[in-house]
Amino acid sequence: MSKILCGVDIGGTKCAISLVSEKGKILDKIRTCAHVTENEEGRVQMIAENIQELIQRNNLQESDLLGIGMGCAGHVRYRDGVMITTSNLKGFKNYPLRDAVQAHFNIPVLLDNDANAQAYGEFKFGAGQGYEDMIFLTISTGIGAGIIINQKLYRGVTGTAGEFGHMIVEPRSELLCTCGNKGCLMACACGMALPYLFEQKLKQGKISKLNLPKNFNMAKLSGQVLKQGLDMDDPVSKEVILDSAYYVGLALYNIFQALNPPLIVLGGGLTNWGDFYLDKIKSTFYDLARDMLYDPIDIVVSNMGNDAGVIGAAALTLE
Amino acid sequence: MSKILCGVDIGGTKCAISLVSEKGKILDKIRTCAHVTENEEGRVQMIAENIQELIQRNNLQESDLLGIGMGCAGHVRYRDGVMITTSNLKGFKNYPLRDAVQAHFNIPVLLDNDANAQAYGEFKFGAGQGYEDMIFLTISTGIGAGIIINQKLYRGVTGTAGEFGHMIVEPRSELLCTCGNKGCLMACACGMALPYLFEQKLKQGKISKLNLPKNFNMAKLSGQVLKQGLDMDDPVSKEVILDSAYYVGLALYNIFQALNPPLIVLGGGLTNWGDFYLDKIKSTFYDLARDMLYDPIDIVVSNMGNDAGVIGAAALTLE
Repeated sequence: MSKILCGVDIGGTKCAISLVSEKGKILDKIRTCAHVTENEEGRVQMIAENIQELIQRNNLQESDLLGIGMGCAGHVRYRDGVMITTSNLKGFKNYPLRDAVQAHFNIPVLLDNDANAQAYGEFKFGAGQGYEDMIFLTISTGIGAGIIINQKLYRGVTGTAGEFGHMIVEPRSELLCTCGNKGCLMACACGMALPYLFEQKLKQGKISKLNLPKNFNMAKLSGQVLKQGLDMDDPVSKEVILDSAYYVGLALYNIFQALNPPLIVLGGGLTNWGDFYLDKIKSTFYDLARDMLYDPIDIVVSNMGNDAGVIGAAALTLE
Repeated sequence: MSKILCGVDIGGTKCAISLVSEKGKILDKIRTCAHVTENEEGRVQMIAENIQELIQRNNLQESDLLGIGMGCAGHVRYRDGVMITTSNLKGFKNYPLRDAVQAHFNIPVLLDNDANAQAYGEFKFGAGQGYEDMIFLTISTGIGAGIIINQKLYRGVTGTAGEFGHMIVEPRSELLCTCGNKGCLMACACGMALPYLFEQKLKQGKISKLNLPKNFNMAKLSGQVLKQGLDMDDPVSKEVILDSAYYVGLALYNIFQALNPPLIVLGGGLTNWGDFYLDKIKSTFYDLARDMLYDPIDIVVSNMGNDAGVIGAAALTLE
């Protein structure tokens, strides 16, 4: 009889807990934001209670579940199940999250970085089905990634492999990443770079059609705001989007040279910029790769939607 | 009874053919430069004859050999055993080198990129012994690399994985690589960059103690010449060496973020610059990695010496 998977996706604003079928379909789900204000023990309690609620209200028993997979933004030491650090939630510094949740259950509990979980979900249930190797790159406020090699996540010695977002691609850049370095991909290309890039264009005298209020808090210049700009053909918004796309395309080229994968799947909020964004990512990639590309590489956008995180977390139980 | 390995290291100037023990020791060796002027068929004939000569003069039979491993500079499609292209030798464009040599022998013949071969040699017989995963990076005229994951070479879909030398690390650079792109690691850091970097310093008015003749052909400003400069405390030579080291250190950081390996082994001629070079590579790496380095990473120089290439090629027969 097929087993049910349980996934927990712990993000900086939302926490999703789901039962997922072995085919990757959501069976039931609880979403909460309460974990943000909880302390570590409170979060663990909350996760355990929500899983037990899902089990009960679906007339299941714990033993009907194959296991519990958790994905959490931040650095994870996989072999120990420890959250080393996360920049999105208070606490979780060297916190043994896996074992703390495991203490509530008799089925296996797994913990990995959220991008690794999404990468594995993409491999099992999404665009990566049928591939041996693939890269998943998520572009939103930050940039995360996961590497599948020989049908398994490749995690490296600590578990932090795939941090392509911290590859330095512009060493003379002023753009500072939360990691403390300047000019890494995350500093140049993702959500956190947008306010700086936009302001630079305005300082150069460029005029935006966005008509932002005089007192607009530039830190709130998000991907969604730029999507509005793109839709109204705002030249400044479009330039910022193209700047981001250039660095993502360059990063894909660096990933191609490093790992020569057959498939790169892109996810994350900024892919909602659509073809205008993707076309520039791809043209940058192909302009750099040219005749060094001997076998085709598929560059596609994830179509797993908003549940990609929790489905990916659940998929970890299948690894 | 233990078998003997045969390795063939096909470089741009030298070709080495060796019998190697299963412990990685050279048993007998032929070195030639004749392959440079041969055409493709002539090279294959020459390689086959030299292997047969080694077999005969050591009173062996072909069946005493486990196999023949060949490493060749350039891009190799591993699964087909085809040299896609090489910038160091005439010919070898889409040439089925593996099968052409195989036609002369009844034991397995393997072909891989020379850096992959050296990486595997380092893993079996050098600094990588006992590791599950490692990266080998060779810094000489160009920059090559090999990736070991789960005790095997990771080659990617074509076989060109590990081309860290072509990662773009300075997109606004004027420095042009043979690949046609500007600002890749190879353009900035290796032997081919040295003349440009040295001339730039002279143009900035810096005075070199090297006393190069007025008609010195700057294209011949090699790593060895700069080693003389380093030994006589020439400030211009030292600045160029530090520039190269900075980019190699940055590349190691990017490799760390991408793959989180426990070990990086450095090889190639420029490592002869010694501690002055290595200290700057390491300090650049550690300045960037800081508290993101949760588990130690060993960064060491290969001690396999001049035979690393042919021993690595022979090691391919053990994979």
